[in-house]
Amino acid sequence: MVELIRIKRDGGELEPDALRWIISEYTADAIPHYQMSSLLMAIIFHGMTQEELGPWTEAMLHSGDVLDLSGVAKPIVDKHSTGGVGDKISIPLVPIVAACGVAVPMMSGRGLGHTGGTLDKLESIPGFSTVIELSTIDAQLNDLGAVMVGATKTLVPADRKIYALRDATGTVPSIPLISSSIMSKKLAEDLHGLLLDVKVGSGAFMKTIEQASALAEMMVGIGESHTTPVIALLTDMSQPLGRAVGNANEIAESVEILRGEGPEDVQALTLRFAVEMLLLAGDESVASATARVVNVIESGAAFERMLELTERQGGDPATLENTDLLPHAAHEHVVTASRPGIVSRCDALEIGMASVRLGAGRATKKEKIDPAVGFLVEAKMGDEVAIGDPLVRIAYDDETRLQAALDVLDNAWEIGDEPVAPNKLILGEIR
Amino acid sequence: MVELIRIKRDGGELEPDALRWIISEYTADAIPHYQMSSLLMAIIFHGMTQEELGPWTEAMLHSGDVLDLSGVAKPIVDKHSTGGVGDKISIPLVPIVAACGVAVPMMSGRGLGHTGGTLDKLESIPGFSTVIELSTIDAQLNDLGAVMVGATKTLVPADRKIYALRDATGTVPSIPLISSSIMSKKLAEDLHGLLLDVKVGSGAFMKTIEQASALAEMMVGIGESHTTPVIALLTDMSQPLGRAVGNANEIAESVEILRGEGPEDVQALTLRFAVEMLLLAGDESVASATARVVNVIESGAAFERMLELTERQGGDPATLENTDLLPHAAHEHVVTASRPGIVSRCDALEIGMASVRLGAGRATKKEKIDPAVGFLVEAKMGDEVAIGDPLVRIAYDDETRLQAALDVLDNAWEIGDEPVAPNKLILGEIR
Repeated sequence: MVELIRIKRDGGELEPDALRWIISEYTADAIPHYQMSSLLMAIIFHGMTQEELGPWTEAMLHSGDVLDLSGVAKPIVDKHSTGGVGDKISIPLVPIVAACGVAVPMMSGRGLGHTGGTLDKLESIPGFSTVIELSTIDAQLNDLGAVMVGATKTLVPADRKIYALRDATGTVPSIPLISSSIMSKKLAEDLHGLLLDVKVGSGAFMKTIEQASALAEMMVGIGESHTTPVIALLTDMSQPLGRAVGNANEIAESVEILRGEGPEDVQALTLRFAVEMLLLAGDESVASATARVVNVIESGAAFERMLELTERQGGDPATLENTDLLPHAAHEHVVTASRPGIVSRCDALEIGMASVRLGAGRATKKEKIDPAVGFLVEAKMGDEVAIGDPLVRIAYDDETRLQAALDVLDNAWEIGDEPVAPNKLILGEIR
Repeated sequence: MVELIRIKRDGGELEPDALRWIISEYTADAIPHYQMSSLLMAIIFHGMTQEELGPWTEAMLHSGDVLDLSGVAKPIVDKHSTGGVGDKISIPLVPIVAACGVAVPMMSGRGLGHTGGTLDKLESIPGFSTVIELSTIDAQLNDLGAVMVGATKTLVPADRKIYALRDATGTVPSIPLISSSIMSKKLAEDLHGLLLDVKVGSGAFMKTIEQASALAEMMVGIGESHTTPVIALLTDMSQPLGRAVGNANEIAESVEILRGEGPEDVQALTLRFAVEMLLLAGDESVASATARVVNVIESGAAFERMLELTERQGGDPATLENTDLLPHAAHEHVVTASRPGIVSRCDALEIGMASVRLGAGRATKKEKIDPAVGFLVEAKMGDEVAIGDPLVRIAYDDETRLQAALDVLDNAWEIGDEPVAPNKLILGEIR
């Protein structure tokens, strides 16, 4: 191992056998943490080549159970987002795509820091369980075309172990390590195709289009070496997606999308993602895929599928039919514009940080979140506001947490005099 | 700790308090190895500034016992070599300087890889013990002006622990980490001055004059921040020093030097080093220091001091008065010149590697060495040889080990037709 660390330290390339050996020995506790962490720090500086990432990721994905979905009689496609603020798109997307006849075995994560997590949002539906037995996934996929659950401990244990070490040793921000972490988990889902939503901007992990492109290219390359088609879209995360930032309120906004309503940006991205997933599943043209997606929304089939999925996973569908039944906070505070003008900044990172202080997110893994609290963003980039117009409505339960959130929110909006064009939603694609 | 790792990872400078905290917590087992190793790897890439090295080294040297030599009524000066092949200079140097009235509390190490170690060489003197109670050092320094021993476990435990981790995590080759390791141990000797012999060339850790200068400057800077005068000489290690490479044979060559004989290069360096140490001890001029050194050699006082030192540390002085009594190998093999010409290369690294194969050195810390085996180098750079002239005489006990050594030695000599000027012995000085 020392010799392998030295090779990476000195900028060399590790052989496929060496990479596989490192993953299997580390997972088996035969390589100590202190050697792995020094290798990971060397990777921070020298990166990994695409030739290294293939076998490294492959070894990770085979470090534990791998889903066997050969019994599912549908094309199997998933989508992964690198995480953002107000990014609830998976929630309407999965039932839409499932209603179009595609199977989506989506395993998601929890929110951490300023970014929210799909599991937390789903769990704000009373009764909804995100835990599933691996052996029952194929039955649910055959019946409903979708599962929306957390990863089990037996799936990709190497990633679980390496991620915990990276978190404790300052070795998180490495594009190849992020790529292999994401792709090992997604490829363990036995997919026919994968759509990646790589967020770019203040509220994303990748702050620049260059970083996001590098990450997207590495992940698409890993897909290639696994012979799984992967498409990556780079999308804007300089301001929150949609209006709702929180948990129960993001479910409510997801229901709007499934009913053909809701904020335009969320509608547009959901449509585009659904079309890309149908193309990955074998649809022949954008036109026909688009028609199928529009149809399952207009007919109510997509919303119906969401209700069935919720019921199957223990949740109460009545709370989706009437979202007033979802958890609601006791109080509302409205932040208003202190000058007239045009919103030139509505910062995703600061709004995300404020949501942690409010209780809608968590700063450390052990914290609990409050599903009822959150923000409704009323003014986004390019919007014209008068003095006293609402910028954001805050649903809160605790005065102290409200104040803590307000301290951060103060910096999130900027209002100027010049017209502002909002950022494009989709900034690039790599396939 | 994660935050401190991140600062170093991103090229920042750590505060003195943070550096002291890291050393004390790591020594106390409160920082896990895996965090320390990832910090060390970040240091490999970003280095440490002189401002960081001062408190870091200071914290290391105070991590355990520090010698208190306030009871020694002499100036206290030591010398440290970064290690080479055939570098026995400490052995004649210490009694010479001690005979001039200076106290030298020399703590040395063992050979590892291609470089020899002073402790191993001394232990080839039958009975010689390199273990000493810290509490008896001042008495021996008052009586004899010298101890030549290994470091105790209670002295600078932080270095012991960090070095073991560096060895296991590919984080050895860092000039600031090497500097702080050397200087923490030397400054724990409570010195008035320190002479550093920084070796340069194939047989040294620093292969280039640039690397060696950087190391020398960092160590001199650490001395400054500790207010201890430090002089560093950069000396050639492209070919072995003197003729003898081994253990008992290096003791025999050291006795030659103490008798005013022996190879010119070893004589010259020993004289220069002794003069520098007397200057560090307060001598006013090079001329008077030189006269004192020449006098203790010519009068026999230096050799007499070596005999006394040997007796005090349990060794048999008779083996120094008649070096035929030192361990001798049973057989000799002579490698001869296969063509006439002028030696253009006599490679220290290859000869050092061959000495490990022969049994005179060790590849791993646990191996035992054979004090009796070794090389006598007969032809060095610039020497003219005829066909059949000896290049090296090999004293060996085991035919298999001889063959293994010969395999490496094959590449150590090059003989050409052009005149070759041997490298200068002293390549630079930093003070």
